[in-house]
Amino acid sequence: MSAPRKAVIVGAGPVGCLTAISLAKMGWAVEIYEGRPDMRLPTSKAAAQQRSINLAISARGITALQAIHPDASDRFLRAAIPMRGRMIHDLTGKQNSQPYDRNGQCINSIDRALLNEDLLEEALAVANIQVFFNHKVLSIDFDSQAMSVRDADAGKDIAVLFDFCVGADGSYSIVRRQLMRVVRMNYHQDYIPHEYLELRMPAGPSAHDGGEPTFLLDPNHLHIWPRHSFMLIALPNQDKTFTCTLFAPTAEFDRLSNPENVVDWFRTNFPDALPLIGEKALLRDFERNPRSPLISIKATPYHYKDRVLLLGDAAHSMVPFYGQGLNCGLEDVRVLDQLLHAQKVDPTFRPSKGAVDDRLAQALQEYTERRHEDLITICDLAMDNYTEMRHSVTTPTYLFRKALDNLLFSLTSQQVTPESFMPELIHDSFPTHWPTGWLPLYTMVTFRPDISYATVKRKARRQDELLNNVGWWSGALTVGITCMAIWRHLRK
Amino acid sequence: MSAPRKAVIVGAGPVGCLTAISLAKMGWAVEIYEGRPDMRLPTSKAAAQQRSINLAISARGITALQAIHPDASDRFLRAAIPMRGRMIHDLTGKQNSQPYDRNGQCINSIDRALLNEDLLEEALAVANIQVFFNHKVLSIDFDSQAMSVRDADAGKDIAVLFDFCVGADGSYSIVRRQLMRVVRMNYHQDYIPHEYLELRMPAGPSAHDGGEPTFLLDPNHLHIWPRHSFMLIALPNQDKTFTCTLFAPTAEFDRLSNPENVVDWFRTNFPDALPLIGEKALLRDFERNPRSPLISIKATPYHYKDRVLLLGDAAHSMVPFYGQGLNCGLEDVRVLDQLLHAQKVDPTFRPSKGAVDDRLAQALQEYTERRHEDLITICDLAMDNYTEMRHSVTTPTYLFRKALDNLLFSLTSQQVTPESFMPELIHDSFPTHWPTGWLPLYTMVTFRPDISYATVKRKARRQDELLNNVGWWSGALTVGITCMAIWRHLRK
Repeated sequence: MSAPRKAVIVGAGPVGCLTAISLAKMGWAVEIYEGRPDMRLPTSKAAAQQRSINLAISARGITALQAIHPDASDRFLRAAIPMRGRMIHDLTGKQNSQPYDRNGQCINSIDRALLNEDLLEEALAVANIQVFFNHKVLSIDFDSQAMSVRDADAGKDIAVLFDFCVGADGSYSIVRRQLMRVVRMNYHQDYIPHEYLELRMPAGPSAHDGGEPTFLLDPNHLHIWPRHSFMLIALPNQDKTFTCTLFAPTAEFDRLSNPENVVDWFRTNFPDALPLIGEKALLRDFERNPRSPLISIKATPYHYKDRVLLLGDAAHSMVPFYGQGLNCGLEDVRVLDQLLHAQKVDPTFRPSKGAVDDRLAQALQEYTERRHEDLITICDLAMDNYTEMRHSVTTPTYLFRKALDNLLFSLTSQQVTPESFMPELIHDSFPTHWPTGWLPLYTMVTFRPDISYATVKRKARRQDELLNNVGWWSGALTVGITCMAIWRHLRK
Repeated sequence: MSAPRKAVIVGAGPVGCLTAISLAKMGWAVEIYEGRPDMRLPTSKAAAQQRSINLAISARGITALQAIHPDASDRFLRAAIPMRGRMIHDLTGKQNSQPYDRNGQCINSIDRALLNEDLLEEALAVANIQVFFNHKVLSIDFDSQAMSVRDADAGKDIAVLFDFCVGADGSYSIVRRQLMRVVRMNYHQDYIPHEYLELRMPAGPSAHDGGEPTFLLDPNHLHIWPRHSFMLIALPNQDKTFTCTLFAPTAEFDRLSNPENVVDWFRTNFPDALPLIGEKALLRDFERNPRSPLISIKATPYHYKDRVLLLGDAAHSMVPFYGQGLNCGLEDVRVLDQLLHAQKVDPTFRPSKGAVDDRLAQALQEYTERRHEDLITICDLAMDNYTEMRHSVTTPTYLFRKALDNLLFSLTSQQVTPESFMPELIHDSFPTHWPTGWLPLYTMVTFRPDISYATVKRKARRQDELLNNVGWWSGALTVGITCMAIWRHLRK
């Protein structure tokens, strides 16, 4: 048997690590190059705490972990805390729970750094995977299959040869930038007018002396303080703290220029959150933590010949309002995994000099063609939810529609458990079946990895049209009955 | 009087040269850096002939030239050939003229290289302008106001300091790429599925021995062979040749893989053009000339502080189907010129180290804010025309709508000549007045620089709505009259 070909993965985030596991299990020799230091070092941990929206992992992400590394998928979720719904906090501090799913399915709050570490440890336990930290990719020549890498520890640039390159290096991907030089890439990047800032809500005192600390808010909810043009959210952590994220327009942040402004503004807008976070902690976080931009990125194609593929945020950065960014990135890996298997790509096959591995090229081509609509759809849905979370959740129309959705859902849907669709799903990278019954949009996006994002959008649109038609017909009926009544009255 | 500040302009194309004239006339010390060799050298001319869609200069471009360099604006147009309308060639070779404007206004075919040379010569005749060819900008540090430039003749990199930088370096702008590193730029680039290839139609024989050569087609039309999914166009040149451009989807081009295919395909689709171009010349051009992509680029913001501004294709590349690319780029320069005057930007004022020239910063901010909608609009209109030119122009609906447009135009519009709005326009960078009367979309875009692109689109939309409503009402009226007739008939 000939030696395996080499796959280089740029980026050691969750998507990069899962891709490494997937490729190594198929028999590739895998090297991961990461520009940042090892995330397991204490110094890295401190840096990570200042900027990263907590992750909400749900069915699509979990399905991908199970498909690629079934033995360990439970371990990945060890630190997750289930959230069964949104808890809406109004201006008086009153809380109102909006469950995500009538069957009780939930999304899971997880610390990005912990998940990343676990995935990295799993990757390192797999044979044939090497990780190089502090190795920043500078440029890539896809035709000669070589990349130039800055080794920060040795203080020099090295050349790395590869057979196949995966860009899992996030929103500001260097692999994508290099890919744009060799393919005609349609590329959109859009910053929204909002920025975000992370705040920490501490754990509460224990119920009794020497006891465990407690959560200051219900831990099984994603807490939202929707204030129309801005909002605060909070997700629970294992250590009983909450990670709060404030989303506001740049201009709003600019007005919060001094400590009194900040405290007053919080007292007015988040009266119940202020005492829980604490004025001192609030001001410290406002001082210390950066205000980060939110970007939406769409691109196509994602590949070039048999040489390179973009996965995760490098291919599609979405605003965080649907909690799908990581889930979608992990689903990317599952889809790639299955396409490589379906095309019977052989990790030991070596095309002659300058030639292309047709099977690998075909798998990547299919990835671009078939995955594109799904990725555009979820980026758009995430953008739509940007308005929903900070504004619509408080409106009567939204609440009425949600109730109606759930009523129709309960009337028409048979109970579907994750287990019932998982086995087929794992063997079908692009589920295209048309789901039966009435399904709320959120349920399909979040809890039904057996339905592709694009199908989700089509079904949701049909359901909307149906409701609109019902509205028209019932309106027309009312007018008709009224006319009839008047006519009968006049005839008397 | 203190020394003037230095403006560097990246790119010596028409937009770069006109910007140089504008800034030098205000008193700036101007340096133009161009990566390519001097376009006046014979070797450059040969290269230019293989790839550049002929330019159609019209009212917006001409107005800009007159506003900035009135003495010479006529000279710029010396080589232009007026085109009064489109000449549609059908599959049998029958020609059908569609005038652009009922008042006889026309667009002007001009060789890009000639216009560029003339503008460059004018720029060099202005004091305070220096041009550096073979000087490719590598990177720019806007905060320290320095750029690194590769001097290809000397074979070394030099550092160039500047006070103000203008990026007029086209679709693949290096200035834009550098700007994206310091501002949060929304940026969209989209390749359309079509490519283009240039062909040359020779001049015809002279009418008598020793006479001048003649045009093989009517020189006062833009010739179009619309074939729905692809098209051929031809624009006249001063030397009696035509520059033909074939636009077709990549897949269509790929099918034309051997000489017989090419000739057969031309014989089937452009039976009258084939003998005029000649089989041999056709095959030579197919062999020699590149197939080039067509890209649409949108961006915002266009500026950073008082440091840099993007103009022309660097800020907005549009597909060439509205003939507005260059016109819009020259209009950019007119708008900038007027904003700098309006803000009374002083080219000799030196802000203290690290500070910003507030007036210049304000002018650039206004440019971004007020010009953006216009630029997005014209990029979109150009994309819409992509379908119109190759398909819609042959449909009865289009022809009916065009006739109706012209009828309404003639009924409601007073005659407006370029001279009647030019004087006000030259003193108003952002014309926002609402034009009176009915105006066809094409007329507004092409012949009315006193109406901003954004206003054009709004007015066109209102006119469309009006026509749609008329359609509904006349439909309803017809039904009403018919019912009445039936009823009267039944009562008899």
